Amino acid sequence: MDEVNASIITIGDELLIGQTVDTNSAFIGQEFNKIGIWVKRRIAIGDVKEDILSTMEDQSKVAQVIIITGGLGPTADDITKPALCEYFGATLILDKKVEAHVASIFAKFNRQMTERNVKQAEVPGNCTVLHNARGTAPGMWFEKEGVVYISLPGVPVEMMGLIENEVVPKLKEKFVLPQIIHRTALTFGYPESGLADILLPFETGLPQHIKLAYLPNYRMVKLRLTGKGNDRQKLEQEIEGQFEGLKKYVAEWLVGDKDVSIVELVGNLLDERKQVVATAESCTGGYIAHLLTSRPGSSRTFKGGVVSYANEVKEATLHVQHKTIAAHGAVSKETVTEMANGILKMMKVDYAIATSGVMGPDGGTEAKPVGTVWIAVANKNKTVARRHFVNTDRKRNIEVTASIALNMLRQMIVAENE
Amino acid sequence: MDEVNASIITIGDELLIGQTVDTNSAFIGQEFNKIGIWVKRRIAIGDVKEDILSTMEDQSKVAQVIIITGGLGPTADDITKPALCEYFGATLILDKKVEAHVASIFAKFNRQMTERNVKQAEVPGNCTVLHNARGTAPGMWFEKEGVVYISLPGVPVEMMGLIENEVVPKLKEKFVLPQIIHRTALTFGYPESGLADILLPFETGLPQHIKLAYLPNYRMVKLRLTGKGNDRQKLEQEIEGQFEGLKKYVAEWLVGDKDVSIVELVGNLLDERKQVVATAESCTGGYIAHLLTSRPGSSRTFKGGVVSYANEVKEATLHVQHKTIAAHGAVSKETVTEMANGILKMMKVDYAIATSGVMGPDGGTEAKPVGTVWIAVANKNKTVARRHFVNTDRKRNIEVTASIALNMLRQMIVAENE
Repeated sequence: MDEVNASIITIGDELLIGQTVDTNSAFIGQEFNKIGIWVKRRIAIGDVKEDILSTMEDQSKVAQVIIITGGLGPTADDITKPALCEYFGATLILDKKVEAHVASIFAKFNRQMTERNVKQAEVPGNCTVLHNARGTAPGMWFEKEGVVYISLPGVPVEMMGLIENEVVPKLKEKFVLPQIIHRTALTFGYPESGLADILLPFETGLPQHIKLAYLPNYRMVKLRLTGKGNDRQKLEQEIEGQFEGLKKYVAEWLVGDKDVSIVELVGNLLDERKQVVATAESCTGGYIAHLLTSRPGSSRTFKGGVVSYANEVKEATLHVQHKTIAAHGAVSKETVTEMANGILKMMKVDYAIATSGVMGPDGGTEAKPVGTVWIAVANKNKTVARRHFVNTDRKRNIEVTASIALNMLRQMIVAENE
Repeated sequence: MDEVNASIITIGDELLIGQTVDTNSAFIGQEFNKIGIWVKRRIAIGDVKEDILSTMEDQSKVAQVIIITGGLGPTADDITKPALCEYFGATLILDKKVEAHVASIFAKFNRQMTERNVKQAEVPGNCTVLHNARGTAPGMWFEKEGVVYISLPGVPVEMMGLIENEVVPKLKEKFVLPQIIHRTALTFGYPESGLADILLPFETGLPQHIKLAYLPNYRMVKLRLTGKGNDRQKLEQEIEGQFEGLKKYVAEWLVGDKDVSIVELVGNLLDERKQVVATAESCTGGYIAHLLTSRPGSSRTFKGGVVSYANEVKEATLHVQHKTIAAHGAVSKETVTEMANGILKMMKVDYAIATSGVMGPDGGTEAKPVGTVWIAVANKNKTVARRHFVNTDRKRNIEVTASIALNMLRQMIVAENE
């Protein structure tokens, strides 16, 4: 069985000038990885026909699957379809099924179909149309000299639907693919370089077909083992053995052994225990509540929260005492402790999270510089409050604070149940 | 003056398997665009020396500036520096200044420096070191046969600091760059394809050196004119004239003429008027509060909010009447109206935003399918409540709802002051 390699070509000036962040490639990389197709290169180019043609030609030498995204929208600058026609020596034909689909979408939204929209139903004559259930631009599948070319619209939700429902099933039919198994250990609070030192002997001892990757993210480092082989059962046993070894090395910082985010980890713990949390946020401004409610079904585990940005709100809504803020300041152990206990009682929940800090760029003082943050978690028996420093930009300071706060909650839940 | 073209090479398996979204390239694209350097290609490759070498070689034929990011972290799989040495025929030498800088960072955090960390101070002998004030991995500047190669760490905050403080100033010194002027009009609530139809005659009439780009984002479409030339003053006049023309075509949907997000637009309006907003969020779960507090200095314009996820919280905290929810449901005009007025009074603010909807994937009914959302904005004189449909995935449904809600607030602020 040969390895199947893929290249992703993304088309659009908006990617090159940085107006759009390319999340499509990450999604495709993940989905292909799951089925044992290796993305070896990702190339972003502008809306220039010559660049599209030469990049397709170049990639056909190193990849068996070439995914092309973008350049299929209804606006005037689109040049992907003419480029595809030239590359394959084909001409555009109107696909009646696609035309009917586009018309049905316009009918649904009671909008007038224009010539521009009808043109979306034109495809190169040599392609197999991939049905885009979520939009008007069809996906297209081409084969030439043993290479598969797949052209998809750049709108993420449409591209994702096409990959899941059309592209992956067809690729599995077309190629004989290897078995791929991932196992991921989650660590929190220890830096990547430190973990790498500790894991050096482990990593050195890994067989060739099993790789270890470090994936740091907001004070969490994911350690991922990836194994590749033909015999799934044998590979599973092997990975399982190595994974147990890996976990022993990092036991001190281990927080989970499934590939989930800290928010999913906490949400799953709460779900299992049928417990509920509420938030009292100052510096994180609602971001922790947002994270907790980003999980489907979060109404089971999240009851509500208060964003007490102004001190007046901390006092009036959360019943933080005026004298506490006057004596210790809003960014203090005493204030977050009262915030946590205030929301705990107000919302009648099992756990509370409270944050207060200086996220920057302004507002720091000598005693409490930008990046100083107090975080408290509480249940009916106890409150834990800790000071942390987060020191990058405002956006990331908020995100890291949320991540630390969720890990403090995780610790409290786990400790309570031990 | 010749055009200066750039290629971005990002190194790291984590990009190809989709574990990391490449935000670095977008940032670099934006910063280069501002100074008149054109990113023509972005290539992501894995941690494979041969691929690094061949990609550098290939890009040196089409670009005068090659930016390489990633592959400089402290973990064992790094192969960028050996590849650079091979490419330039150089050997690694220990840079004493970088070593002292790395040591000072470790001293600051009271951490032990390991051999792995010392190695970060080794650089190819032929490079000019670019000081990385925010981390341990130095930036490196090389020149070979008229092409500039710049290697930067992949950690976004470090890469950004290096681009702003080291790379951009040095590039401006090295090359004679053209004048670039952007003007951006913001529209809300009309789709890209519709705008493109309306703007067809305008676009057709644009001179060669002025381009129009459509940048849709959460029901907002940014229309950006980009002009390029040598005479800044002349170009400014020309762009200004075209921009006035553009605005007339889309006057009906025009919401701003600066390149800002809807959140900045609202924040700026509130700042100008010294007015304050509060939020009562159900389905958006704190996301609107998060957006409003992501602006630096947001304590001037945002007082606080309640995330009333459970109906009990809507009643107890926001004083929505029990009978209102019983009669009309939580997702209704009546409930969001009471939520908005409840938070308005509770927080004593000028404006309130309230949301309640079904974000999915579960929880929909025949009468209120997934994607149904009621949004209200209120001031002391009036309340506007509207039903919308948002119909993608949960994450995007929340984001689009927030965007629509902020635009409703914008409309109310503007109408009040007319």
